[in-house]
Amino acid sequence: MSDVRVCAVGDSFVAGVGDPDHLGWVGRLAARSPVPLTSYVLGVRGQTSRQVLARWRAECDLRLPADVDGRVVVSFGVNDTTLVDGVPRVAPADSAAHLAALLADSPWPVLVVGPPPVDDVAQNGRTAGLDAAFAEVCRERGVPYVGVLTPLLASPVWMREVTTGDGAHPGAAGYAELAVLVRPAWDDWIAEPGR
Amino acid sequence: MSDVRVCAVGDSFVAGVGDPDHLGWVGRLAARSPVPLTSYVLGVRGQTSRQVLARWRAECDLRLPADVDGRVVVSFGVNDTTLVDGVPRVAPADSAAHLAALLADSPWPVLVVGPPPVDDVAQNGRTAGLDAAFAEVCRERGVPYVGVLTPLLASPVWMREVTTGDGAHPGAAGYAELAVLVRPAWDDWIAEPGR
Repeated sequence: MSDVRVCAVGDSFVAGVGDPDHLGWVGRLAARSPVPLTSYVLGVRGQTSRQVLARWRAECDLRLPADVDGRVVVSFGVNDTTLVDGVPRVAPADSAAHLAALLADSPWPVLVVGPPPVDDVAQNGRTAGLDAAFAEVCRERGVPYVGVLTPLLASPVWMREVTTGDGAHPGAAGYAELAVLVRPAWDDWIAEPGR
Repeated sequence: MSDVRVCAVGDSFVAGVGDPDHLGWVGRLAARSPVPLTSYVLGVRGQTSRQVLARWRAECDLRLPADVDGRVVVSFGVNDTTLVDGVPRVAPADSAAHLAALLADSPWPVLVVGPPPVDDVAQNGRTAGLDAAFAEVCRERGVPYVGVLTPLLASPVWMREVTTGDGAHPGAAGYAELAVLVRPAWDDWIAEPGR
């Protein structure tokens, strides 16, 4: 049996913050993956693409030794678009460059999931810019990208849970919707042979 | 509302390896904790106490900034007792010293969970030695310790799942049993004021 191990790196959405079931979208996908796997959930609250880039490789190196079928799922961006003194925490061009740097540095197959919407129309507008930029970065490199911003903006479940929650994170049903959006790409990606 | 964040550091049992639900005992406790919390599951397959000691602080520092109510759950030891060329990967005195060093270095309240049994009588005997030594290290420092070796050796569910699984890890029911054993100490510990 192949020994597939998946590291999911990113922000609070990757960590499943707000989910009373403590599964998040990553846990839900891992539990229904067509291939048995070990999942390491490495989302950290509040982190921007810059902060994820600074630590992801060391954390994955410890968890994905050379003799296993290692994979990496990446999702970040919302924190990049948060304004501090009227300026985004990370400039959009830098966010895209951070994703490109991560992809260039990864010895493992990567699946990228885009940033989701929060309860802030202006911030969602900035996130839409990142979503498009990330899609382009991935397309150029032949890396699968799942944009979730648009479908989740149209999801009453996601938007209601975010609004009634802390303004950013959904509950169990919202994470389940996100998992459904990612599942087709995940299933294709996990079925591909590893390195 | 207090912002409680728990890092669970350790080995494959902390990571929930073998659980088709991808919750493990940590996810089950987090989902039923009396206090809402963010959980970071930082178990890594195959790691000994020495390897956990080498990385736990850096990973927790990133996830437990000074302005949150940070907590750390620790569990390791089974991999220490694995024989390589007839010698345990980590000598018992070193295992205890690693736990003591972690406790001395932690700025956060710690809960220690002992190593569980596997499908190997001789290894379980070596683990019993660690279990006693870890209990003593924790007692001397006033740190809560939950020994699980003895009750899980007597658990038909745990031992059957371990035996029919990969010889080390249980399935969902076994992890649920482990969570039940840890729950009383977890509930007391999480209810105590943080630093």
